[in-house]
Amino acid sequence: MRSSVIALISDLGAKDYFVGAMKGTILSINSNAKIVDITHEVARHDVRAAALALASAANAFPEGTIFIAVVDPGVGTKRRCILLQTKNGLFFIGPDNGIFTLVAERFGIAKIYEITNKTLMSPKISPTFHGRDIMAPVAAHLTLGVEPAEVGPEIKTIQLIEIPHPELTQSELSGHILNADNFGNLVTDIDTTAALRFAKVGENLRVKIEDKVLEVKFARTFGDVTAGECLCFIGSSGTLEFARNMGNLAEELKIKIGDKLIIQR
Amino acid sequence: MRSSVIALISDLGAKDYFVGAMKGTILSINSNAKIVDITHEVARHDVRAAALALASAANAFPEGTIFIAVVDPGVGTKRRCILLQTKNGLFFIGPDNGIFTLVAERFGIAKIYEITNKTLMSPKISPTFHGRDIMAPVAAHLTLGVEPAEVGPEIKTIQLIEIPHPELTQSELSGHILNADNFGNLVTDIDTTAALRFAKVGENLRVKIEDKVLEVKFARTFGDVTAGECLCFIGSSGTLEFARNMGNLAEELKIKIGDKLIIQR
Amino acid sequence: MRSSVIALISDLGAKDYFVGAMKGTILSINSNAKIVDITHEVARHDVRAAALALASAANAFPEGTIFIAVVDPGVGTKRRCILLQTKNGLFFIGPDNGIFTLVAERFGIAKIYEITNKTLMSPKISPTFHGRDIMAPVAAHLTLGVEPAEVGPEIKTIQLIEIPHPELTQSELSGHILNADNFGNLVTDIDTTAALRFAKVGENLRVKIEDKVLEVKFARTFGDVTAGECLCFIGSSGTLEFARNMGNLAEELKIKIGDKLIIQR
Repeated sequence: MRSSVIALISDLGAKDYFVGAMKGTILSINSNAKIVDITHEVARHDVRAAALALASAANAFPEGTIFIAVVDPGVGTKRRCILLQTKNGLFFIGPDNGIFTLVAERFGIAKIYEITNKTLMSPKISPTFHGRDIMAPVAAHLTLGVEPAEVGPEIKTIQLIEIPHPELTQSELSGHILNADNFGNLVTDIDTTAALRFAKVGENLRVKIEDKVLEVKFARTFGDVTAGECLCFIGSSGTLEFARNMGNLAEELKIKIGDKLIIQR
Repeated sequence: MRSSVIALISDLGAKDYFVGAMKGTILSINSNAKIVDITHEVARHDVRAAALALASAANAFPEGTIFIAVVDPGVGTKRRCILLQTKNGLFFIGPDNGIFTLVAERFGIAKIYEITNKTLMSPKISPTFHGRDIMAPVAAHLTLGVEPAEVGPEIKTIQLIEIPHPELTQSELSGHILNADNFGNLVTDIDTTAALRFAKVGENLRVKIEDKVLEVKFARTFGDVTAGECLCFIGSSGTLEFARNMGNLAEELKIKIGDKLIIQR
Repeated sequence: MRSSVIALISDLGAKDYFVGAMKGTILSINSNAKIVDITHEVARHDVRAAALALASAANAFPEGTIFIAVVDPGVGTKRRCILLQTKNGLFFIGPDNGIFTLVAERFGIAKIYEITNKTLMSPKISPTFHGRDIMAPVAAHLTLGVEPAEVGPEIKTIQLIEIPHPELTQSELSGHILNADNFGNLVTDIDTTAALRFAKVGENLRVKIEDKVLEVKFARTFGDVTAGECLCFIGSSGTLEFARNMGNLAEELKIKIGDKLIIQR
């Protein structure tokens, strides 16, 4: 089943004509396509951040949605453009540079195709903007009923990037900062199961993030602690997050993505 | 009458997956919903700024439009989620934290419901993201024909925030800075009627904003004064605004939202 | 032929209610209009930057698309609002301040109308926001089948802004920086023909940008040079661009828009 929804994620930014040109290209092929922006403010060339945002947002979309992910420092080189179909019926178009590592891991791979069929692309292909000239038109054709297998030959593997994983011992749970969100909250790679195996909601914990130490309450939500207090909680994308209620922990601790954290009871 | 337009306003920012997840949730329930962004760049947790932007934009939308307002520092606590129907036929979904103070004041309250019907929400509700798990699905169901009364029990009052009001004496008109827009223009709480009762377009006025004093011309539009001159004018949202033509008055005066101003003839 | 696609470009920014109000106005007239943002982050009052972004994006859109361009420092003065129809079947609505210089040059002018028909505008027109009160409703009416000639009298000329042009001598090709994109790549006004008349892909060139000198490779795409090396290439909007692979040349060189560059072999 395919829908006419095309969801976009990129590092193309809001100020240039890039995203507009992709949307125009899609609408030129299917003026009934429903185009939705996830974000175009992924940090420049940050494939891992895009992989994470995509995996966090994708599940909310209807079956058959086609995602285009354009964080593509290797554009125009031999890296492939691919179409990935996941087991939960979503479609992902983008460069084969690891950007689909997390959606493959979370949703499972059903099929992978290399995009090679030039009849589904724009007649002129800029070697620096495959998002507009290859990915956007292929996505638009899929919403019109073109079969996934028509985009090119089936392939068996995709490029993966290394995603750090949390470690649990009897006395410590360690993980990594994957993202600092718009509110300065720290999103980690510690999933719900690991977090709840280590501690219970309501407990007070101590966390070391690089060389800083914080006392935090394992809470349900912000309002469970007073303004100015620190907390951790199961975040909206299913992993443990750290925050200072009404504060900005990322700025306060000068967090860098990838920083290691160790939680102690 | 309800339309299929859902308009979003929030402090969720452009860089994270949050807004994308709300849109995906809506489209999963009604793939024909027409989703429009007002802004997601409301200053973090600034309920008053959101109330103002919402009241300024809402009137332009078609009857039956459903607005979702997510500036929600109390998410997951006992604060209610509500559906407000105004007398001009618009619907507003959001936290009961005062965010609807101005639309209630300007458009009048027809009905208010507390949102409690779990069958209209996502099966799993994150205590930190009701925008995605409660408000978005309820809005989507409304576009499909669910009646407002189905969302939960009718209630009689909503939380209000204090909005400063202007004061007019014989020699002075005083008010407050409600917003500094993208151009550095200062939006005040002085409405058209009060402004025109105090002075006439064409007059020269003197304004004190905290400890700074400016000479301004009461003009129709920017081009009525030369580049570099100051003016005030009835702004596009119906209140008095102050600007320096081709300048940025907010930066120049280091304005803070809420600053008091006194206009003298 | 007209489509129901309305594409928006402006300097109105993302944080205010402005763009939301334009969209609401359009949907109030035609709730089936398909509204697409090109960008609202054009530098404040920068008509030339808007002209460039518009010309770069427009070609990707379907025939009949209606563009609204709101970079309008003269709003409310005697400057006209116009509707421009180009020879490739696109429609442009905006102030007559030169913002359509490049689309007129690239696509050719079919017809120009001054917008004067008040029955197609909002009943109340703010002298500081014609984007919402004149341009948005006129565009919406066009998507409903109103004929271009109904908006007002045909006129013969539009305001043009001076766009610098490149110069080619036997030993030098000179041009100007038109834009620095989200990646810090420098977009010039040197078109493909001029660039390929002067040099061949694969050649090493020397470029002087104001008082700085760079050695660059004329490449197809970023991956043709190693990380940290400089390159020039035919960019996705058809003109020569300069970049440092995985770097940010605009920041590094403190580029100002309009800076002159001279390329030597």
